[in-house]
Amino acid sequence: MPVYNAPAKDMHYLLHDVLKVSEAGIPGYEELEPDFTSAVLEEAGKLARDVLAPLNAVGDREGCRMENGVVYTPTGFKAAFEQMKEGGWTGLDCDPEYGGQGMPYVLGTAVGEMFVSANMAFNMYQGLTHGAYSAIHAHGTQAQKTTYLPKMVSCDWTGTMNLTEPHCGTDLGLMRTKAEPQADGSYKITGQKIFISAGEHDLAENIIHLVLAKAPGGGEGTKGISLFIVPKFLVNADGALGARNGATVGKIEEKMGIHGNATCVMNYDGATGYLLGELHKGMRAMFTMMNEARIGVGLQGYAQAEAAYQNAVAYAKDRLQGRAVTGAENPSGPSDPLIVHPDIRRNLMDQKSFIEGARALTFWGAHLIDKAHRSNDAAAEGMISLLTPVIKGFQTDKGFDATIQAQQVFGGHGYIEDSGMSQFARDARIAMIYEGANGVQALDLVGRKLAQDGGKHVMAFFEMVKGFLKDNAAHEGLADGFLEPLKKASKDLQAAAMYFMQNGMKNPNNALAGSTDFLHMFGHVCLGLMWARMAKASHDALAAGAQDAEFHRTKIATGRYYMARQLPATGMHLARIESGAETVMALDAGAF
Amino acid sequence: MPVYNAPAKDMHYLLHDVLKVSEAGIPGYEELEPDFTSAVLEEAGKLARDVLAPLNAVGDREGCRMENGVVYTPTGFKAAFEQMKEGGWTGLDCDPEYGGQGMPYVLGTAVGEMFVSANMAFNMYQGLTHGAYSAIHAHGTQAQKTTYLPKMVSCDWTGTMNLTEPHCGTDLGLMRTKAEPQADGSYKITGQKIFISAGEHDLAENIIHLVLAKAPGGGEGTKGISLFIVPKFLVNADGALGARNGATVGKIEEKMGIHGNATCVMNYDGATGYLLGELHKGMRAMFTMMNEARIGVGLQGYAQAEAAYQNAVAYAKDRLQGRAVTGAENPSGPSDPLIVHPDIRRNLMDQKSFIEGARALTFWGAHLIDKAHRSNDAAAEGMISLLTPVIKGFQTDKGFDATIQAQQVFGGHGYIEDSGMSQFARDARIAMIYEGANGVQALDLVGRKLAQDGGKHVMAFFEMVKGFLKDNAAHEGLADGFLEPLKKASKDLQAAAMYFMQNGMKNPNNALAGSTDFLHMFGHVCLGLMWARMAKASHDALAAGAQDAEFHRTKIATGRYYMARQLPATGMHLARIESGAETVMALDAGAF
Repeated sequence: MPVYNAPAKDMHYLLHDVLKVSEAGIPGYEELEPDFTSAVLEEAGKLARDVLAPLNAVGDREGCRMENGVVYTPTGFKAAFEQMKEGGWTGLDCDPEYGGQGMPYVLGTAVGEMFVSANMAFNMYQGLTHGAYSAIHAHGTQAQKTTYLPKMVSCDWTGTMNLTEPHCGTDLGLMRTKAEPQADGSYKITGQKIFISAGEHDLAENIIHLVLAKAPGGGEGTKGISLFIVPKFLVNADGALGARNGATVGKIEEKMGIHGNATCVMNYDGATGYLLGELHKGMRAMFTMMNEARIGVGLQGYAQAEAAYQNAVAYAKDRLQGRAVTGAENPSGPSDPLIVHPDIRRNLMDQKSFIEGARALTFWGAHLIDKAHRSNDAAAEGMISLLTPVIKGFQTDKGFDATIQAQQVFGGHGYIEDSGMSQFARDARIAMIYEGANGVQALDLVGRKLAQDGGKHVMAFFEMVKGFLKDNAAHEGLADGFLEPLKKASKDLQAAAMYFMQNGMKNPNNALAGSTDFLHMFGHVCLGLMWARMAKASHDALAAGAQDAEFHRTKIATGRYYMARQLPATGMHLARIESGAETVMALDAGAF
Repeated sequence: MPVYNAPAKDMHYLLHDVLKVSEAGIPGYEELEPDFTSAVLEEAGKLARDVLAPLNAVGDREGCRMENGVVYTPTGFKAAFEQMKEGGWTGLDCDPEYGGQGMPYVLGTAVGEMFVSANMAFNMYQGLTHGAYSAIHAHGTQAQKTTYLPKMVSCDWTGTMNLTEPHCGTDLGLMRTKAEPQADGSYKITGQKIFISAGEHDLAENIIHLVLAKAPGGGEGTKGISLFIVPKFLVNADGALGARNGATVGKIEEKMGIHGNATCVMNYDGATGYLLGELHKGMRAMFTMMNEARIGVGLQGYAQAEAAYQNAVAYAKDRLQGRAVTGAENPSGPSDPLIVHPDIRRNLMDQKSFIEGARALTFWGAHLIDKAHRSNDAAAEGMISLLTPVIKGFQTDKGFDATIQAQQVFGGHGYIEDSGMSQFARDARIAMIYEGANGVQALDLVGRKLAQDGGKHVMAFFEMVKGFLKDNAAHEGLADGFLEPLKKASKDLQAAAMYFMQNGMKNPNNALAGSTDFLHMFGHVCLGLMWARMAKASHDALAAGAQDAEFHRTKIATGRYYMARQLPATGMHLARIESGAETVMALDAGAF
């Protein structure tokens, strides 16, 4: 059975040695003292390892089942959900006014990673709730907040997001679900939504669906869309549950993975809904959830890779097969462990250097969100807006690749379901698709984010890299394998942006045909920057006589690997981009 | 439900316009006239489309089941197997002396691709039989050939390969299965083998297991290994089936994919076995099967991608979502089809240019095998020996990537099992693992094949590329997008080989740490060469006033895409290789 041990030490390092959160001067960050974060991470790690991880294979094997319209989650999910609620984990970074603990998002992100690594399908029940909480918190009336948020913070009630319909995913302008205004100010919602994660289940007393629908008078396309709160059970004035609403599950989808989460077809038959936010401005309200959800999915990308990696390492140390080419390393045994072989090393280093880099990028992203929200920092808001598609798209593509590499270490045993490696791969696959398929992330990055606010944010990013290189030009440790590769990769990225500017005006296809390559380049530069920052932090720690010198030396060596072996990808992406749209668009549709 | 239409036209083009088989002067090739191959491909295509493809999802859903030691294949498999036998497809390229049709391997390869694309799990029953047939044909006594081959050619009896044991896969020296010599010249085989594809099933009267085991006196490691024929039912002197042998199935494995094929744990309890080939030289005999099997697996890599690609194209043309950025292309509809979007185009072109290039490489490889076997051409034998790990490793890695990309076109619908795209991905995954995991292919390439016969074959490969570039230096069509990229990529590959020579002597890890990168580079250069050859063939055809000009123009455009957008990967791989083993091997095993 697969194992999982939370990487609390690495998280602690990011929070305190790299991001230095307790000195950041952000409201709420003063609580993030090392002793406190250690205690939180330790407790969360125990829950992840002892309660959630053992249920991961159970959820995959059993899946969810529907009987007479009632959806049952896999054995053990309900008890685990209660444990998570009792520990207060569901409201860790929620507003204290509604029962939350008010912790910064960066801490919630660290804890979230552990839960996702341990059991991604399970954690989605609370993850979706958190997204719905955020949307109501940002856009709800005071009465709506009072009615729904305390129960959602505690996860007595869970939440969902309802966007997709059978004929429309990305193109929400085609939406058919209708909202008819009623005399009492409520709406009747009618239509079908698909791919609704946690759409129906037995973990909570009530489910608060957030549903996009078209109300009269909004015009064509996405302009006519509004967002509605549609509870499974209506809520009486006293807060007690009232009548069952006309929101029912049509079926549970059979999926490639995340079987433990009930992905539902939801039918709304004149269900009572309440407008959330402004009429006909539902897309805006939904995006509050979407951005948070996208970073959460980017986290899933490397968190699944982390779980798979831990098991690949254990297998590579345990499995005896062949001899090291440089001489036996286990001479008293019949063979050496797999980990002696250079190609296995390469495989494990690819995984390790990606995962730790992506963790740093995600934590930095969470830190930017805290800065934006808690310090009203517009520059931080702009930066995270730029980075969101990169975090989502790059980390889920590469996270899936890393998971496949981890599975590969097991040879044939990795293809057998018992090993658990297949589940990691099947589960990780969804992250490239949902919350906007990665091609849509690339389009968002190149088509919107690059030019946002006059290109201010991407310029700020380049300035940040330049500043780092300049400030550390004389740093001997960084000169050994960090500064030059980062400079080169950043120059490639700038050249690509320049190519888009010069050629995208003539023909936007010249930019869009390179969008996925650009997203990947950007991801590599981000991880290169993260590794350079971590290398600096670790060199500084070593110079200051840090106790755990081995940890820091490993960190620096892992970073040098990323710079030497992963960053050269930017040159390839640039060459592809600079070849333009011509070869991409050459064929008539009929020629495929 | 997924569709499949055999790409007979593309195959015909490769056989006659590119390889020009009927002019090749290889014994047996004179039969490969265009009319004849067209008829064969058409019939095979019908069987693939109408019989095999509709059973693909059935096999995935039902899987195989065992009741009281009897293994049942999915509904419809038996009837389809009978149809395949009746059509004579199982012996297409087998020796006429044993009932085969004696067709060249290149034609068998084309037909095989169709069957694999249509239903990979199903086709493995006959694919394994073909491998076992080859081993007996090459190493068996006349009596063994007479006893087993006719029934195996007709697939009345099927075959298996038994190498892996629970504690040993690649490292066969650890093998524990024993063979005890008996007074009558037979052996008693005792041990457990795992991952035995088609190990037990209801499709054939008898199953001929080829089993590696250790007979006394052979010494340590792989030197002591011999190969044995172990029939499920012993065969009487008159050819009738006799007693049930002690070869039984322990269980069927639950796998990520290829559910339609029974992957068995096989228990040999003093089973009667007959030595095949020389005592203690079983590895050599087994490699007869392995090389053929590896090229067959390389074919699976792109054949699964082909099936997935066809469905991705259909979906991209059908699904309306968004508008072309350059202006509506379906103005009367609510949206444009997905295929108008540049990033979808990029995705489809990646798939198409890989698949058609890999098909060309595989057909060329089959052609080399025919040349080696039918014309006793040692240079062809050396070349295909060099290319085998490239065909297996590169094409299955990239084939899986392409399948994942095809699934991505479907967005959320691709994650739902109903679409069939998940099955393609899950099935394609195994090809990276079995018949030697791809890391082992890379090791075979860099550690053995490069230096084989004093490096003669790799030199011949480089000479061939150089010769092509020289012969076509003045070719205007090829100058437009083919010659320069091929030259550059080939130079990168040579630089990598040079790096290995100069640095691998000091420390073999310098070569082995770059082995997977080298395998991928080599694959790209091979596909670049294939595309250049195809472009030449199509330019020539256009100049000669070919009827189907559109086909040839599409071919050239697809090739230009590969050269511009895929070949730049060689620079990245070279940079990784030239960074050496230091960052790869820097960590102690305990630091992972």
